[in-house]
Amino acid sequence: MKVDGAAFRTIWLNADGWSVDIIDQTKLPHEFVIARLTNLTEAAHAIKSMQVRGAPLVGATAAYGLCLALRDDPSDAGLSKASDLLFATRPTAVNLRWALDVMGERLAGIGPADRAAAAYACAAEICDDDVATCSSIGDHGLGLIRDAWEKNGKPERVNVLTHCNAGWLATVDWGTALSPVYKAHDASLPVHVWVDETRPRNQGASLSAWELGRHGVPHTVIADNVGGHLMQHGLVDLCIVGTDRTTGTGDVCNKIGTYLKALAAHDNNVPFYVALPHSTIDWTLTDGVAEIPIEQRDATEVTEIAGRAADGSVTTVRLTPDGSQAANYAFDVTPRRLVTGLITERGVCEASREGLVGLYPERG
Amino acid sequence: MKVDGAAFRTIWLNADGWSVDIIDQTKLPHEFVIARLTNLTEAAHAIKSMQVRGAPLVGATAAYGLCLALRDDPSDAGLSKASDLLFATRPTAVNLRWALDVMGERLAGIGPADRAAAAYACAAEICDDDVATCSSIGDHGLGLIRDAWEKNGKPERVNVLTHCNAGWLATVDWGTALSPVYKAHDASLPVHVWVDETRPRNQGASLSAWELGRHGVPHTVIADNVGGHLMQHGLVDLCIVGTDRTTGTGDVCNKIGTYLKALAAHDNNVPFYVALPHSTIDWTLTDGVAEIPIEQRDATEVTEIAGRAADGSVTTVRLTPDGSQAANYAFDVTPRRLVTGLITERGVCEASREGLVGLYPERG
Repeated sequence: MKVDGAAFRTIWLNADGWSVDIIDQTKLPHEFVIARLTNLTEAAHAIKSMQVRGAPLVGATAAYGLCLALRDDPSDAGLSKASDLLFATRPTAVNLRWALDVMGERLAGIGPADRAAAAYACAAEICDDDVATCSSIGDHGLGLIRDAWEKNGKPERVNVLTHCNAGWLATVDWGTALSPVYKAHDASLPVHVWVDETRPRNQGASLSAWELGRHGVPHTVIADNVGGHLMQHGLVDLCIVGTDRTTGTGDVCNKIGTYLKALAAHDNNVPFYVALPHSTIDWTLTDGVAEIPIEQRDATEVTEIAGRAADGSVTTVRLTPDGSQAANYAFDVTPRRLVTGLITERGVCEASREGLVGLYPERG
Repeated sequence: MKVDGAAFRTIWLNADGWSVDIIDQTKLPHEFVIARLTNLTEAAHAIKSMQVRGAPLVGATAAYGLCLALRDDPSDAGLSKASDLLFATRPTAVNLRWALDVMGERLAGIGPADRAAAAYACAAEICDDDVATCSSIGDHGLGLIRDAWEKNGKPERVNVLTHCNAGWLATVDWGTALSPVYKAHDASLPVHVWVDETRPRNQGASLSAWELGRHGVPHTVIADNVGGHLMQHGLVDLCIVGTDRTTGTGDVCNKIGTYLKALAAHDNNVPFYVALPHSTIDWTLTDGVAEIPIEQRDATEVTEIAGRAADGSVTTVRLTPDGSQAANYAFDVTPRRLVTGLITERGVCEASREGLVGLYPERG
């Protein structure tokens, strides 16, 4: 997407043909910094320190990390060692494992002399495939935004509410939940986004607001508490969120607080859609609330927050009194009964096994 | 309630018999500062700058502000001028108007020479009445906490979720929503409070967490997004919140985000109670969502936040990117169908006109 008029992806190969550039997301929204990755160590650090985040982008970065490693040591041992090191950066990330497996399989039959070149070709494919997947999600979701706008009498603006960041910064380009928004904006629909700030890590207020603003999409940041009130008063035409893990039956595990917005949407007859590439579907799961363990993260993400101080420096401040504990559950599960539909790269379906198998008959 | 072992109210008359002390709530939770009010100007400033906040406490402060004014000018003109000046500090505060009216009526028939003394007596009564009202709310609510604890098999702890600050800091003592919690704690029930941080002004993370901690009540601060997940997993036994305005039919207008918690409680069969003194009831209203206008506050409360920096100073930082707008709706309305019961100083009732008239037959 665009950053103040110039087209960007979140990761790209340099003109030198071998080094890799990324947008350093730890600096957003206060600074737009491009970081250069020139070796395995820098690539691993980019993933571990969350300069890159979002499942698809983490996978793409790992793929390029392997390319950089193979330039220095293209041996079988080198390949294996680099893959292990990259996997260890975020061992629970499904796409990281997947990207390393794809690369490993492709490179296994290729001799050391040709490995680096083959790796670069494979990493580029992984990136392009992700862009195509996200673009398709956008095309399918665009229809839903247009439908909501037309159904509500083509008002001056069509209001989409989103939670967290499932935008292009979480992928290589386009994003998942925000891809339909970019498609709608580019198609000149009068789309406006209510951006939940998404405590405690504030991915909405920092990342979603930044990427929408830089591309020129009208948006308004709101506290996570506000969405219900907006829906009671007809100020939301539809909700679109992403998902970290989707059961084969259509339950959705996404950023904490998603469930509350789905309840409000249901209570006010506002359509609630979830956008996802098929890679987030766990076909073995049938009951998300019962079966998906919810990660608890460090309490300091609740008790402290970073922002830009008056002098321009990024400063961390403490919010809670000394002695008060905090708990930090990272995700929650929205039962399929609250989900109007799933937007995938193959089309839109009901949040159910039947719906998903209809789009993915090879899983039936 | 107690602050590290010593009993406090939020406002009290000094040993000198005339000056008035308050807890400066703008300094919480990072500093515990007592401010002294010695004249009308200081009292008005305390209300306007929100050194004191919460409807009952604002009323009590206005009453003492009038006392301080009458020491300097006990004439009819002085009384009238002081009353106008205090009312202008927060003209939408219902209790402020009410307290000034009570004082004005009491003092109208008293000559200037005796006015200040009569005013001090009346202000003390207003404070004591508020303490008695809040204490009664606590006594009635205590039964509900005990019931929930016993019904769930007397678990190791009974978990109450609250939103915003309806604690003793918002009143003269005891609070409304937190009064039952203090009563339960003092009665040795194993009560634990989930404290919603309550964005954007963070009254939960700063004020509720502070007052519970200083009194010694176990509590855990959570992002506003978390409550639904906790309820899905049986980690909340009941919710208790306050209300700024209650319709005669039992709809509740409270801090933004209350509605979302009520939806989650309803979806998970968790009792959802609202604690209130009868002074918050507006008997003329029948449909809260349609009839109650919702205040929009300054967007900087969303885009910026203050906390304690590493050097100990209280610092404001910006959270959102330059160019991103924010909206700041301060309250929302929870329809009575989601409210299990209202806890008043006269007892607990159904959230309906019949329920309220049962407790307040003089309104029937």
